[in-house]
Amino acid sequence: MRKFKVTFSPDQTVVEVAEGTTLLEASEKAGVYVNSLCGGEGLCSECRLQIINGKAKGDKYAIRFFSTKEIKNGYVRACQTRVDDNLEVVIPIRSRMEMEKIITEGISTHSEPGKESLHQVRHIPAFLFEPLVSKLYLELPPPTMADNVTDIDRVTRELGKRLTFSTYDVSLSCLQNLTDKLREHDWKVTSTVARRNGAGQVLQFEGGNTTDRNYGLAVDVGTTTVVVQLLNLKTGKVIGVEANHNLQARYGEDVISRMVFAGGRGSSGLLQTAVVTTINALTKALAKETGITPTDINCLVASGNTTMSHLLLGLTPCSLRLEPYVPTATLYPQILAKEVGLNINPQGVVEILPSVASYIGGDTVAGVLACGMANRPEIKCLIDCGTNAEIVIGNNEWLVTCAASAGPAFEGGGTKWGMRATLGAIEKVEINNGQVTYQTINSGKPRGICGSGLIDCIYELARNRIISQDGKFDLSLSNPRISIENNIPQYILAFPDETEAKQAITITEIDIDNLIKSKGAVFAAVKSLIDYVGLKFTQLDTIYLAGGFGSSLDIRKAIAIGLLPDIDTRRIRFIGNSSVMGARMALLSSRAFEATRSIARGMTNIELSTYVPFMNEFIAALFLPHTDNQLFPSVHY
Amino acid sequence: MRKFKVTFSPDQTVVEVAEGTTLLEASEKAGVYVNSLCGGEGLCSECRLQIINGKAKGDKYAIRFFSTKEIKNGYVRACQTRVDDNLEVVIPIRSRMEMEKIITEGISTHSEPGKESLHQVRHIPAFLFEPLVSKLYLELPPPTMADNVTDIDRVTRELGKRLTFSTYDVSLSCLQNLTDKLREHDWKVTSTVARRNGAGQVLQFEGGNTTDRNYGLAVDVGTTTVVVQLLNLKTGKVIGVEANHNLQARYGEDVISRMVFAGGRGSSGLLQTAVVTTINALTKALAKETGITPTDINCLVASGNTTMSHLLLGLTPCSLRLEPYVPTATLYPQILAKEVGLNINPQGVVEILPSVASYIGGDTVAGVLACGMANRPEIKCLIDCGTNAEIVIGNNEWLVTCAASAGPAFEGGGTKWGMRATLGAIEKVEINNGQVTYQTINSGKPRGICGSGLIDCIYELARNRIISQDGKFDLSLSNPRISIENNIPQYILAFPDETEAKQAITITEIDIDNLIKSKGAVFAAVKSLIDYVGLKFTQLDTIYLAGGFGSSLDIRKAIAIGLLPDIDTRRIRFIGNSSVMGARMALLSSRAFEATRSIARGMTNIELSTYVPFMNEFIAALFLPHTDNQLFPSVHY
Repeated sequence: MRKFKVTFSPDQTVVEVAEGTTLLEASEKAGVYVNSLCGGEGLCSECRLQIINGKAKGDKYAIRFFSTKEIKNGYVRACQTRVDDNLEVVIPIRSRMEMEKIITEGISTHSEPGKESLHQVRHIPAFLFEPLVSKLYLELPPPTMADNVTDIDRVTRELGKRLTFSTYDVSLSCLQNLTDKLREHDWKVTSTVARRNGAGQVLQFEGGNTTDRNYGLAVDVGTTTVVVQLLNLKTGKVIGVEANHNLQARYGEDVISRMVFAGGRGSSGLLQTAVVTTINALTKALAKETGITPTDINCLVASGNTTMSHLLLGLTPCSLRLEPYVPTATLYPQILAKEVGLNINPQGVVEILPSVASYIGGDTVAGVLACGMANRPEIKCLIDCGTNAEIVIGNNEWLVTCAASAGPAFEGGGTKWGMRATLGAIEKVEINNGQVTYQTINSGKPRGICGSGLIDCIYELARNRIISQDGKFDLSLSNPRISIENNIPQYILAFPDETEAKQAITITEIDIDNLIKSKGAVFAAVKSLIDYVGLKFTQLDTIYLAGGFGSSLDIRKAIAIGLLPDIDTRRIRFIGNSSVMGARMALLSSRAFEATRSIARGMTNIELSTYVPFMNEFIAALFLPHTDNQLFPSVHY
Repeated sequence: MRKFKVTFSPDQTVVEVAEGTTLLEASEKAGVYVNSLCGGEGLCSECRLQIINGKAKGDKYAIRFFSTKEIKNGYVRACQTRVDDNLEVVIPIRSRMEMEKIITEGISTHSEPGKESLHQVRHIPAFLFEPLVSKLYLELPPPTMADNVTDIDRVTRELGKRLTFSTYDVSLSCLQNLTDKLREHDWKVTSTVARRNGAGQVLQFEGGNTTDRNYGLAVDVGTTTVVVQLLNLKTGKVIGVEANHNLQARYGEDVISRMVFAGGRGSSGLLQTAVVTTINALTKALAKETGITPTDINCLVASGNTTMSHLLLGLTPCSLRLEPYVPTATLYPQILAKEVGLNINPQGVVEILPSVASYIGGDTVAGVLACGMANRPEIKCLIDCGTNAEIVIGNNEWLVTCAASAGPAFEGGGTKWGMRATLGAIEKVEINNGQVTYQTINSGKPRGICGSGLIDCIYELARNRIISQDGKFDLSLSNPRISIENNIPQYILAFPDETEAKQAITITEIDIDNLIKSKGAVFAAVKSLIDYVGLKFTQLDTIYLAGGFGSSLDIRKAIAIGLLPDIDTRRIRFIGNSSVMGARMALLSSRAFEATRSIARGMTNIELSTYVPFMNEFIAALFLPHTDNQLFPSVHY
């Protein structure tokens, strides 16, 4: 059988594979991340790669979903394309960015197994590598008349030498096969031990040495998207990642509509089933692509907003949304996977990161953990901006937080041509001398405008004085791109012949109004919080941007429209999906997990809906960049 | 509708009931205990009563199972007989004794709810009334913006004011309906709280005040018989008791045969199902007769030998019986009822009293708790004698224990005419001048000889020099009751015309030999233990006799044959079913439950099978009363 070399750019990772291997398999063998939402089933086009050298074998399915131009440029679907030559393959930027965002940020989060480390990569705090669930291989001395302690005492005696728990709880199911297992395997067994309320919780005994098979899942349970990372708990390495839409979406697009749906008797159960099904599908795909057995996954740490956390556990989220905003719980009990139907080891433990309040969830706590702001004396700020924006300010001594409803504009909703940041979305816009230039995701034909595109757009319109600083069109201009439809002025970003749908892509005055309200809400929240603690923006050491805002956001333009505070842009950093990052850190380190609890306990939540200064700040912020120019000294229109 | 008075003797308890009420229902209404194994289904004859005045209504089923003489004497089955007149009814001694033995010993065990007490009735230690599971009615302040802690925090904040736990664990299922329940019931709920590893474990929330509905079960899981007591956990009172054969008997009569059966792969499961089915049937009967709902039973405390405890939990008991006699566990995990299929509240907690070693189980620990020997400085001895005899010696500072195989003789097995202590068993024997007088249980025609009858018999034969002190017949006597069958000499206790089966009931030389071995094993065990601790029998303050030996045992005769040490008989006391007594105490008092753990931990087990002095003692004890006459100064043949 012939073998070929495949070189993956831009990292020049080379792998040798047999003729007929799919490019997806080759990428897995090379340890190179290629997004594959459908798990290689040929249902999506996420695993797109560009072949720049060599010829591959693929039928019409290899090029399904692609434009003629893309096909000409060598784009193929990795799962449907087979190696038939030495190949040079480029992983498109978007896939690579996903990978960087999701995976690499975590790789250096932890010290080597067994070694304590103060090593800190960029902003990420280091925690001792000490996974929530560990496996220990035990070679026990067989009992004698002089040493005939019970089987379980023999095991815990040995565990006590190797672990630091003062007591060990053993589940019934675990005890039930212990005696046979010890004797069948000549007193050589592997015990799986979790931490529960400070005690060791023995989950399982297996014959022989199975310490190589211990995996965990870090899960970001987003309202829109669920991201699952598979980790090897022996090495601490991420060995796979999958993401997909939260199946709950069928019951309502956003958090509020899900809460309302859950209000129907028994409907929480449907929402729970939906998210569990989503996680199970991703887990199955991950197990398949990495060749592991799902029952070897012994721990799952999930991070989500308070509603998502409630729904995953089957708790009613109804009281979250109404004054006085009371969750059922913010500290969630450790449960077994089987209790909620998660298809990992049924005895595996599931931890959900603690919430703070109805609108400040475990995802925000995860973000605080991940960016390390609770570990350092400098005062930092975390802004996690989606439909809801959560803001945290503080340091290792104090943390204050608040949540504001930003509306769906930044996520592509609520505007005429808004869309999520996927293929064909306009993500960058510039207007110079009446000329519009834009950039779409994956260079596809424009299909709409995503959040960063909308921000660019407003800034460019204001800078070119096409709109005024209160967001109204200057109708005195005779600009061919300005039209009026149903009495609403709008600006044509792309003419019909440029777009996929052959319809003009526009931004209307109403869209602009919505966006100004959105950015106004976020800024007012940040401003309310900084005022609350009596500080100035200039005293912030760093602002971390998490979540929805991808790195395609132009920070200078975001400041210029008054979304972000006007500080040195070098002090503003993207940290990507800090929710999954925090979940992963907690999974890999009991100390990090404990830290989430003290972070959650220590955060002071300001309830903005009843906080009068916020309303004033909001109204003051409905201007570009702000009614108070002195807050934005660097911005000039 | 006509009403009649029913008077139950010997206590002269009077109850008024409507015409047509069954005598069983009347006894329940009167609060008088009538044994009813089949739960009033008409399947057994345990509910027998004697009508001595008035006429009752009953068809042929009312007198089923009874002899003509019994029918003539007014015996009826209570469940099949209806009131049609004012009646005077006698509860037969055996039923009454059962009742006294099982119930009354516990009534004064505990102080009044909420009050600490040092009150001690006879030998029974007092523990604070503090059931393992308690219900608390909470009227919570509804949340406001100024007080919007989570629902569970609102609950535990209130619990913290009323209980002493430092932390509270809440099960997932309990959290899942909390939010709705609080709001549906206007913040008035009852919470069910158990103790688990020193923390409060919230099991359940119910709307409104349900504190009146909190029950528990104390269960003696015997190899032969299972006894279940139903307790009101609010008052601490026993409100019902049922007993039946352990359905495991179908898989083997004794502990060893059950262990052997369990050795087959998966067979532990059958044994577990059998004992759970037994307990469930008794629970159902108790719920029916007391009118409670089984799901209001929130706790079950079981006490049994190590094999029974293992089987109830589904643990393999195979390694218990082989050197080096290693149990899977001796400290059993707290589990939920649903985990083993017990039909009480599925979230109800099940505790199994801790064992000490393979042959020293929770029943022995319960006995030590119940007799209070671990609470007092005086040195006492507990002898629990069945097929296995367990012996404990010690006080509040130390406890030593051992187990010896006594064989089935004392329980009616292993002898030609041996039988259990039921209807027709010869329980007392006297021989004077060649005249044999005997007493049978319930005065029925003789059907065999039970343990106490056999002990009497041997003593009487030796006293009358019909057998020598080594148990051999004096064949030089021309005694018409001595015959030889198949070369084996035997003594005729009842001639064919006296017995139910019209066959002579005899005791053979082999039977006597077996009994001497049995009594020798028990005495040798007690002697080995007292020697081990360097004491004399005369230094024992009290000897408690538990279990198999009922109060029909003649203590003087038991000493005279060398079964019990020769001490002042006033210092030997029957304590009946101390296993269920200890279980009940642990159920009613967390401190008593904790005490079982320290008792079990503190007991030193002497493994007699490898203890050389025991073998010598055993051989020395194969004589009536003993080869060393000085050990039995009061005995003269």
